[in-house]
Amino acid sequence: MSLIVQKFGGSSVANAEKLRNVAGIITDTYKAGNDVVVVVSAQGDTTDELIEKAKEVNPSPSKREMDVLLSVGEQISISLLAMTIENMGFPVISLTGWQVGLKTDSNYGNARISKFTNDRLRNEILKKNIVIVAGFQGINKYDDITTLGRGGSDTSAVALATALKADLCQIYTDVDGVYTSDPRKIPTAKKLDEITFDEMLELASLGAQVLHNRSVEMAKKHNIELEVLSSLERKPGTKVKEVVKMEKMLVRGVAVDKDIAKVAVIGLPDKPGIAFKMFSLLAQKKVNVDVILQSVGRENTKDISFTVNKDNLDLAVSVINDNLDVFGATKVVTKDKISKVSLVGAGMQSNPGIAAKMFEALADANINISMITTSEIKVSVIIDEAESDKAARVIHDAFFNI
Amino acid sequence: MSLIVQKFGGSSVANAEKLRNVAGIITDTYKAGNDVVVVVSAQGDTTDELIEKAKEVNPSPSKREMDVLLSVGEQISISLLAMTIENMGFPVISLTGWQVGLKTDSNYGNARISKFTNDRLRNEILKKNIVIVAGFQGINKYDDITTLGRGGSDTSAVALATALKADLCQIYTDVDGVYTSDPRKIPTAKKLDEITFDEMLELASLGAQVLHNRSVEMAKKHNIELEVLSSLERKPGTKVKEVVKMEKMLVRGVAVDKDIAKVAVIGLPDKPGIAFKMFSLLAQKKVNVDVILQSVGRENTKDISFTVNKDNLDLAVSVINDNLDVFGATKVVTKDKISKVSLVGAGMQSNPGIAAKMFEALADANINISMITTSEIKVSVIIDEAESDKAARVIHDAFFNI
Repeated sequence: MSLIVQKFGGSSVANAEKLRNVAGIITDTYKAGNDVVVVVSAQGDTTDELIEKAKEVNPSPSKREMDVLLSVGEQISISLLAMTIENMGFPVISLTGWQVGLKTDSNYGNARISKFTNDRLRNEILKKNIVIVAGFQGINKYDDITTLGRGGSDTSAVALATALKADLCQIYTDVDGVYTSDPRKIPTAKKLDEITFDEMLELASLGAQVLHNRSVEMAKKHNIELEVLSSLERKPGTKVKEVVKMEKMLVRGVAVDKDIAKVAVIGLPDKPGIAFKMFSLLAQKKVNVDVILQSVGRENTKDISFTVNKDNLDLAVSVINDNLDVFGATKVVTKDKISKVSLVGAGMQSNPGIAAKMFEALADANINISMITTSEIKVSVIIDEAESDKAARVIHDAFFNI
Repeated sequence: MSLIVQKFGGSSVANAEKLRNVAGIITDTYKAGNDVVVVVSAQGDTTDELIEKAKEVNPSPSKREMDVLLSVGEQISISLLAMTIENMGFPVISLTGWQVGLKTDSNYGNARISKFTNDRLRNEILKKNIVIVAGFQGINKYDDITTLGRGGSDTSAVALATALKADLCQIYTDVDGVYTSDPRKIPTAKKLDEITFDEMLELASLGAQVLHNRSVEMAKKHNIELEVLSSLERKPGTKVKEVVKMEKMLVRGVAVDKDIAKVAVIGLPDKPGIAFKMFSLLAQKKVNVDVILQSVGRENTKDISFTVNKDNLDLAVSVINDNLDVFGATKVVTKDKISKVSLVGAGMQSNPGIAAKMFEALADANINISMITTSEIKVSVIIDEAESDKAARVIHDAFFNI
């Protein structure tokens, strides 16, 4: 007998029929003798409808009140799913974020989970109830409702699995696992049976949004085995774990992130401390900087380029512009029609030929590289957005269609 | 400076425009120097929509899960109203039932408030926030969400007013006060400036559903002054209080309750204890019995008739039928096309002529009375439902159009 945490996203619980399908998966797991804790997101378009209602009364409502409003979405899902399971004759109970004592910091709209503070969840499991928990939501130290931001329900599920020392945390989505690349764009993409946390982290943060990186980070930290699988088909998905069989695969996948923009700060004086000043200021303003490239400019100056999320572009530019004098820079140039294409695989760290093979594939396809960054398990290139899908395809072909 | 609790029903907060109107009333009260606590119901049709969603997955969901689902409605209202007030530049915070620590018993769907258990509400008032509280909902000792049933938001408002020792509890509705009868049916009905708790209680329980009787009972017990007024017009409504100026009015109003049915148990043995057995059994099954009439039947038997809410009719009949042998009765006869018409007024207890004048009005209109019941401040008659509006009119004319 195992304790299994299952997470279902908004599209999996969008209507009565889908709720019955999900209830079937849950009760089959329970009938097989497992303890089951389920985390659900808000139904389909509920969140968008609630945001629409808010905008009608206030163009910029406080984040605190937005969280009070949005947390309603998951509360609707948990009660409807519990009723569906009741109707099938199984013992079940729904619990909200505050009822399971899921505590977070006070960063409304994008809160981080800090801890669980009560035993309600454990007691309901001991009573042999199937427990349906509202994802995406928690409470801060003032007992105010918070939401966890993008991918929050995945994070809720992993956090619950961690607290309960679950044997497995299954993340049900509308795809049946993690692929070597986006199967909608690259038909030859292959489903992976297994992938390491580190590889998944790179893929997640690089735009293959099957799992949110916060949830993978948490699973890695506490060594909770994850499985990504489809709620529409009853078949195994992709397991995400600490160590996987290496097989012959050196690389695990190709990911594309189109959600980035480049900022270039031109004409900085060539002296120490400038980069430190710039990036600490950006960090203070909560701008996440990804790839950084420094190059020699004209006449004893240097240029620093970096990429940020498109969302952060305006903020990053205004921070730099407000401090042009401090840095001694001439100007700021931006470009937002760019993408990051990455090759990920734990096997590549001991195989120096991999980056070269990737660059060769891009060169053969006549695709120009504007920036390069590497880590132990990935190689990323920044290229024109218009060429990103083609780039992913030629890289994928080079490594997977041998 | 006073502490004022204001309650707004679902139709008063149904959309953005109505939310802005209500926010205007609230902020005007705040600007006048008062502390303001607001209780709101779910928007317009929200509750019906949620019930519809539940029925799609389960024809008879558990009451616990229904309460998890339905409590969402008020949570939507409080956040939207808070956002509306934020947008007008006032300090405001929304709080759910559990956040204000409104504790109830575990009678899901129809819970009773037991106490307040935290100081959150008081602290927010001290911080000079306008506080928006979700009506209709609380939590039981297990921290499960409960709802208060019909008129629950009125009860929430009075309970908060009691706990906070508020100076006034204003109940905003779509009518501008309490009338001597239903003004939609009796055009000559007059608005009352004041009415006593006892009179209001009789009117509320007798079908003049401006205020729910549980809220009036609570206000009477703790001597909280109520005011019933319209959210659409800025003018005084009707004050409900312990003692009012008597003026010349002996009677305060005429109320019609069409939501009742009659049960007659025929051929009971004429010996002691039968009525006790029957009504204690009905009480065990939570059937609320109203008017009771006992008459002599044929051959040393007696008949007992009583009225119940239409909702309770089937349950009452099955309880009696299951125990016909125990009571020694012959049969049960029911009638559901009946109404109760009542004349209410604290002045009538010392004026014996009032009941006679009421019966005279009915006799003149050729309306047959099937049962009569009286209390210190009311006289009620049970008549055919088809004649109830006419009956109310002739009684009203007899007392108010002099």
